[in-house]
Order: sequence, then structure tokens, then C-alpha cells
Amino acid sequence: MPCARCNEPAVTLVRYSGQHLCAGHFCEFVERRVKREIHRQVEFRGGERIAVGLSGGKDSSTTTVLLHEVLAPRRDVEVLAITVDEGIASYRPEGIRFAKALCEGLGIEHHVVPYEETVGWTMDEVVAAEPAAIPCSYCGVFRRTTLNRAAREAGADYVATGLNLDDTAQSILMNIARGDVDKLARLGPHDHPQPGLVPRLQPLRTIPEKEVYLYAMLRGIPFHDGTCPHSERAQRGRFREILNRLEEDSPGTRHAIVAGYDRLRPLFAERFPPPELNECVACGEPTANLMCKACELQTRLGDRKAQADREPETVH
Amino acid sequence: MPCARCNEPAVTLVRYSGQHLCAGHFCEFVERRVKREIHRQVEFRGGERIAVGLSGGKDSSTTTVLLHEVLAPRRDVEVLAITVDEGIASYRPEGIRFAKALCEGLGIEHHVVPYEETVGWTMDEVVAAEPAAIPCSYCGVFRRTTLNRAAREAGADYVATGLNLDDTAQSILMNIARGDVDKLARLGPHDHPQPGLVPRLQPLRTIPEKEVYLYAMLRGIPFHDGTCPHSERAQRGRFREILNRLEEDSPGTRHAIVAGYDRLRPLFAERFPPPELNECVACGEPTANLMCKACELQTRLGDRKAQADREPETVH
Repeated sequence: MPCARCNEPAVTLVRYSGQHLCAGHFCEFVERRVKREIHRQVEFRGGERIAVGLSGGKDSSTTTVLLHEVLAPRRDVEVLAITVDEGIASYRPEGIRFAKALCEGLGIEHHVVPYEETVGWTMDEVVAAEPAAIPCSYCGVFRRTTLNRAAREAGADYVATGLNLDDTAQSILMNIARGDVDKLARLGPHDHPQPGLVPRLQPLRTIPEKEVYLYAMLRGIPFHDGTCPHSERAQRGRFREILNRLEEDSPGTRHAIVAGYDRLRPLFAERFPPPELNECVACGEPTANLMCKACELQTRLGDRKAQADREPETVH
Repeated sequence: MPCARCNEPAVTLVRYSGQHLCAGHFCEFVERRVKREIHRQVEFRGGERIAVGLSGGKDSSTTTVLLHEVLAPRRDVEVLAITVDEGIASYRPEGIRFAKALCEGLGIEHHVVPYEETVGWTMDEVVAAEPAAIPCSYCGVFRRTTLNRAAREAGADYVATGLNLDDTAQSILMNIARGDVDKLARLGPHDHPQPGLVPRLQPLRTIPEKEVYLYAMLRGIPFHDGTCPHSERAQRGRFREILNRLEEDSPGTRHAIVAGYDRLRPLFAERFPPPELNECVACGEPTANLMCKACELQTRLGDRKAQADREPETVH
């Protein structure tokens, strides 16, 4: 099958547009949309520093490469990367190696920030202390606070993440199913910055996960293809399945969900404004409550540990 | 297991509230919510006529009984019923028999309006003329226009339908998946009436389908339990499955979806107001376009028939 735009052989069929594309035109197709998305989300005035939350996986590695390339013509904007080390021995070191290599290749600043420095626990320790809990519910909170703090301390004006179209549509649907209008109103990208919170950029939010994968492969972007040993127990897996089936039946469903959501965003911003933020009594990070969620979880983990230390002989 | 409110044996567990209830307290539980919903949707001033779209199935029969009972103390409000006869020989006559018996038992006015009178085709004829089409896409449009016209001609101020919680949550999710914000904004109940359109009431919109069923059985409400021979080819079946699975995992999901939607309704009403309506050039019914959807479909069916009459010998 030839490419719809030239005579090269096609490498893929973009189902929701019905077009067969060759490697070159497929990459161009991705890049055009990412570039448009970046400029839709940020109006650059010069002097900005953008920190990518770089895990070393396909999404964040592609985000790093594309931000670097799109912004390369602007000498006055800087792209750097922050890798959060959750402390998962069987998984994270490999991702860090990929992240490091990518940043060295691009010649950009790279910070590696372990959970131990910010929340005092590795995820391996959390899982040992709370074997019955869903690890992602800890890791999500710890990662958010760690990335935000590290970005702020690195002087970043924005944190870019690798969130792709599938992730975005899943988040929307998940919050709809929970009736959580407030959370729905606070999904990124953030155009109303709040003190202490570095606003999020999501350059890949219109690119389907499979296209990110293919793009990274075609461009030869090195990335870590591992899966976190603790993942998939999260509820998100259910919404991934649902969306995959809907997309299969009606190609374009994910795009439609995000486009519909985007028509509602201005209403959300107006009617469901973010809450006033306080400084967490324990760590000083911004929170809507007295104590931030990360410190709350650390307190709970500390209690579990103290309890376990007191009852060393109990066998369950 | 005893009832959570008395010592009678429970007939059901209401999963999302965790309560076992006996027959009496279960019925009270349903009635309280329906009554609240009716009064939330209409502020009665006296003199209102409410037409129930009564198919004879469990939902619309229960709606008729409950509206009749809730409004019985008000002598100045009248409940009547309109049964649309779609012309489905293997299915509808039985429903009409039940509808007639119910209305006679309650002593309320009852109109039976065949599709032939309003759109000139029975559904059996439509299916024969368009065997490849999804019949519901015709029937939905024809039913809406027939019910609206009949209610208006009967002097009704409102049309009540049997839409239950499952239907409501499915409609919301379906329009989210299509990114159809405008349609999302126009789901009932209608608090901003438009000329020519009789506003919709949905007394059962917070009652799960299974509870409606149980309620009708416990109360001995006679209803037709048949399934339309043409149903289930519609896309709605997919969303029914999705919601059933989500509800199974997280009881309360349907309620959460509707509650979240209801928080957004005021925004919708303001930002996505209904379009200005014209009179259909063919039938005079209200439409956002020049010709209403029902007349458009009738024209298409007429063309098919004319074509078939011209090519009587063609074998496919």
C-alpha cells in the first residue's frame, strides 16, 4: 500500500483519518500536531525553562526529543529533564540509564531525584510496609510532589509530561465515572498557574499511544520498554480496556472525548476554580488542606512501621 | 437477612447504599426519591396536564402509577397517558393491551397514536424498505416527533418518560464518547421550554433499572415484559455493558455520573443554549433546520420505495 502523500510504501494506517502513511509522512504528521499543541499551550516570551518529567519510557523520551527540536530555533528557551527515582530496584535503574543517555545525546541538563530525598521512602519499602494497598495510589502522590518540587527548585517555568491521547481520554472518562467535576476541572494543561505549583504541559495529549510508540521506533529514539512491576492493579486498566473497545468500534472516540472536554474547559476554569492553597504544615509544599497528601501518606506509613516494630512476632 | 429499618425479612440488598430492605421499606425508598425528583423538576402552579409516554413496559408503567399517586392529592393537576404505536406486529399490540388496562384501572385519559397517522409508515414497513439500516435510528426520531405532537395536541404541559438511572447514565456516557457537547447540553429534564416542544420530565432518572423492575413486581403493577425484535443492534448496548461492569466494580458509578452531570447542567444551559427553532417546511413541527429529521427520513424512505417499484425484477 503506498503512502497517501507520496509513492513510498506506507508503514501504518491511521485508522481515524483513514490514511496510509510512509515513515517520513507519518513522522511529519506527528510532529506537526505536537508543535501545534506546544504553541497552543504556551506563549513563549523568552527566558522560559521547561523541565520534562523524563522516566526514560517511550512517551517522556519522545516528549523530550520533540520539545528540544521544536524549541531549538529559540535560543532563549531551555529544555531540561528531571527523572524521578521511585526506588523500584527491578525496574527504575534501567529507565534512568536510558534517560541519562538521551539527555547526554541531546546535550541537556538532567536531574535524578530519588523519592528518598523528598518523601523518605522508596517504593520497594512502601510495598513491603503496605502489601495490601494499591502501590500506584502512593506512587502517584509521591511522584507529583517530587516532580513539582524538583522542577521549582531547578527554576523551571513549566513541567512537561509524556501524557498521550490514551492517557488523557482515560483520565477524563475516569473522572466522569466518579462524578468528580472538580478533578475534571483541574486536569492539565494548566493555563491558570497557582503559587508553588509549576504548571503542566502535555505536548503529546493529541497523539495516540500507538503512534507515540511507532514514532519513537521510526526515529530511533532510545527508550526503556519495561513495565513497572506494581502497575495494572490500578483502576485505570479498566478504563484503558473500555476505551480500546470503543475506539475499535468507532475510530476517533478518544479524539472526540478530548475535543468535547476541551470545549468545556473554559467553563470549568470559570465555575470550578482551583481551591486556595496553603503551605503544608509538615513540608511547606502547596496543598488545599492543612497537610499535603504526600505527608499524610508518609505519616500513615510511619504508623504502620512503628506498629510492625512493636509486634515483631505476630504471624498473619 | 432482616431489613435495615425493621424486622421484616429483606427482599433486596441496595448495593450502592449497602442496605438490606424489606418490601415495604424498599418501596418507600423508591417512592421518596421519585417524589423528590418530580418536585425538583416541576414547580406546580395548578392546572397542569402531564402526559406520560406509556409503552406498557415496566419503566413507563411505573412512571404512570407513581405520577398518578404523587399528584393525586392535587385535584388541579391531571395525569394522562399517550401510547405511541410504532407498528411492530409481533410486539406492540401486547404493550398496548397492558397500557390500556393500566389506564382503565387508574381511571386516566389514554391516547393511542399510530406512526401511520404522524409519519405515514409503520416500523415493520421501514424495516422492509431499509433492511440494512439500524431500525432504532428511525424509530427514535419518529417516536420523539409523534409523542411531542400528540402531547401538544392533547394540551399537555409536560411529557413524562420512563427514563431510568441506567438510561440516563448511558446517554451521558454515549455523548461524552462522541464529544457531543451540544447534545449533552440538551438531555432532559427540560427547564428551558422551547416553542412547539413539550418539555420532558424524567421521574425515574435516579432509580436504577433493576430497582424499577423489582418495584413494579412488588407493587403488582401490570407491565409488558417483551423486548422489541429490532432492539440491541443499537450502539447503546455497548454503553449498557460498560456501565454494568463499572457499576459491578464500583457500586454507585451510575449515580456519580448523573450527579457530576447535574453539577454541569447550569453551565450547559448558559453556554450551549438550544438553537433557534424553525417550523419544518414539510410538516410544521419545530426543527433547528429547514426540514425536520422525521420528514427527512420519510423522504429517504419514499425514495427507496420509488426506486424499488421501478426495479421490481432486480435480485440482490
